[in-house]
Amino acid sequence: MRPLEYKDGVLRLIDQTRLPAEYVTVECRTYIQAADAIKNMIVRGAPAIGVTAAYGIALGAMAIETQSKEVFFQKLKEICDTMRLTRPTAVNLFWAVKRIYDKACENKDKPVNQIKKIIEEEACLMDREDVETNKAIGANGNALIKPNWTILTHCNAGALATCGYGTALGVIRAAHEAGKNIKVYADETRPYLQGARLTAWELLQDGIPVTLICDNMAGYFMKRGVIDCVIVGADRIALNGDTANKIGTYMLAVLAKENKIPFYVAAPVSTIDFTIADGNSIPIEERKPEEVTHIKGIRIAPEGVNVANPAFDVTPAEYITGIITERGVLYPPFDESIRKLGG
Amino acid sequence: MRPLEYKDGVLRLIDQTRLPAEYVTVECRTYIQAADAIKNMIVRGAPAIGVTAAYGIALGAMAIETQSKEVFFQKLKEICDTMRLTRPTAVNLFWAVKRIYDKACENKDKPVNQIKKIIEEEACLMDREDVETNKAIGANGNALIKPNWTILTHCNAGALATCGYGTALGVIRAAHEAGKNIKVYADETRPYLQGARLTAWELLQDGIPVTLICDNMAGYFMKRGVIDCVIVGADRIALNGDTANKIGTYMLAVLAKENKIPFYVAAPVSTIDFTIADGNSIPIEERKPEEVTHIKGIRIAPEGVNVANPAFDVTPAEYITGIITERGVLYPPFDESIRKLGG
Repeated sequence: MRPLEYKDGVLRLIDQTRLPAEYVTVECRTYIQAADAIKNMIVRGAPAIGVTAAYGIALGAMAIETQSKEVFFQKLKEICDTMRLTRPTAVNLFWAVKRIYDKACENKDKPVNQIKKIIEEEACLMDREDVETNKAIGANGNALIKPNWTILTHCNAGALATCGYGTALGVIRAAHEAGKNIKVYADETRPYLQGARLTAWELLQDGIPVTLICDNMAGYFMKRGVIDCVIVGADRIALNGDTANKIGTYMLAVLAKENKIPFYVAAPVSTIDFTIADGNSIPIEERKPEEVTHIKGIRIAPEGVNVANPAFDVTPAEYITGIITERGVLYPPFDESIRKLGG
Repeated sequence: MRPLEYKDGVLRLIDQTRLPAEYVTVECRTYIQAADAIKNMIVRGAPAIGVTAAYGIALGAMAIETQSKEVFFQKLKEICDTMRLTRPTAVNLFWAVKRIYDKACENKDKPVNQIKKIIEEEACLMDREDVETNKAIGANGNALIKPNWTILTHCNAGALATCGYGTALGVIRAAHEAGKNIKVYADETRPYLQGARLTAWELLQDGIPVTLICDNMAGYFMKRGVIDCVIVGADRIALNGDTANKIGTYMLAVLAKENKIPFYVAAPVSTIDFTIADGNSIPIEERKPEEVTHIKGIRIAPEGVNVANPAFDVTPAEYITGIITERGVLYPPFDESIRKLGG
């Protein structure tokens, strides 16, 4: 299962707003369409957003009609700026945009048509690399999972959030493939219901036993000893290990610590923001109130009610047992283990 | 605002399953209709369930066609048993059934018609008493609230959960009426959305500033210093202070403690179960999976997914700052303060 497929100038995305009721794909032929798909959460999940942005820039670059380097790079910069403005929290987006732009700059002496090709190839390479990265995260995480464990996860850090296999669900898939007889509890993850709609669907398709719960039930099952470990994805990790992830992650981390349950973050190294010291500098996206007041177009809250809808929160490093990356598992003190990784 | 009104053999309930989209009342003329209304959550909230059960028994008793004391008490017992089986967690239900049955037994020497009248009058008295109790809870709780505080609440412990005014929302109403310029954050409370549908609606009607959030956002706002205090209702309080309340309450209590925010339970003394030592003996109701997989009849999760749907959890006493009752605020050690109250 892959949320995005690129071929011959067309980026085809699974419309994740309509899963699991409908399996529909959306075609992006312009960078504006790709940017809108990110904004409107047709594609979501930090790694998938990054690669979609890369493909979006490739679509935009290929449509620039000029032989002038100056005009080309001016327009390329505008396209990159548009992509950067789609969503603020996941750093993979900025990482991907920078990687593509830097690649173009490295090749600025080549003819425009060749630079376009190089951009497209770089996006395809990032796509392939992401799957390999997730397989490595899966293998590294699997070493931490004991047979017969029940694992709690939040949101969807699965195949649908990446270019395939998943980060948190990559670890779960690897443990399942290793025959460890694991079970999963999936938080439904309000307001966007990524857990109910996407994680439950992915795991059912793979035959991994999954129990769907509401977000406010996680503590109950931790306290009753049902949960052996929590694994979540990440949208941005600061140098000290503070981790931004889907709203509600912080609550799970505090509850896990209180109940002495290991709490792991699974994410590629591209999710680490080596430019920020701690989580205080991570911008938290506020999304529109209708995500909370309406479900599938039906109003569930009274008219005129004030709503807050932060899409992410920051889990302080002190609550995190380990960060599972493709280059190994990082342990506290994270400021040391992360700096070592960066160096 | 009152969720129930009794007059001349008819119990009229606001259908809380349809709020806030529709304001519809349902008439109960038999004890079976009253029992079904409790089971199907047309009426909900521990104190409101208790008084509905009392009225339901009155409706049932009045319909018993016999002059034989033996037959009357046999049938009355059956009616009480039916009421007791509607929902398992809130102790107010059992307290109310016992109070009505005991009142009938105390008067067993009187003629059947007179006993029927006494039962009906006792139910009406419990109804009136509940409003007075909530006003007293409000006054006692108000003393704990500082001006300009922002109070987080969960589920609906409001007028709609009682016979009027509310317990947790009674404290909030009292503070608002005292001109303390308070604000409320209301958890939406999945799966039944009592916060989004009922608490937000009640507070809007009273002009009390309310911000609706998803359950998984509460920790974020606590950590950011937005929340000054948490107040929730209760379904059953054990002798040691362990408190069963709507699922998700335990998570809030742990998060409040972690963030050094006072966490109060507001409940009438009838919510205390003087027969159980701690929360381990409180039965937790498991409700049907469709409450989680469907919202307003629309499926949000994939077919075939396994679901857990515990309706309540138990918050250990160690996380509770104080229990606000009509007879004053109880403080730790609760085993002492509660025993003193019982004596």
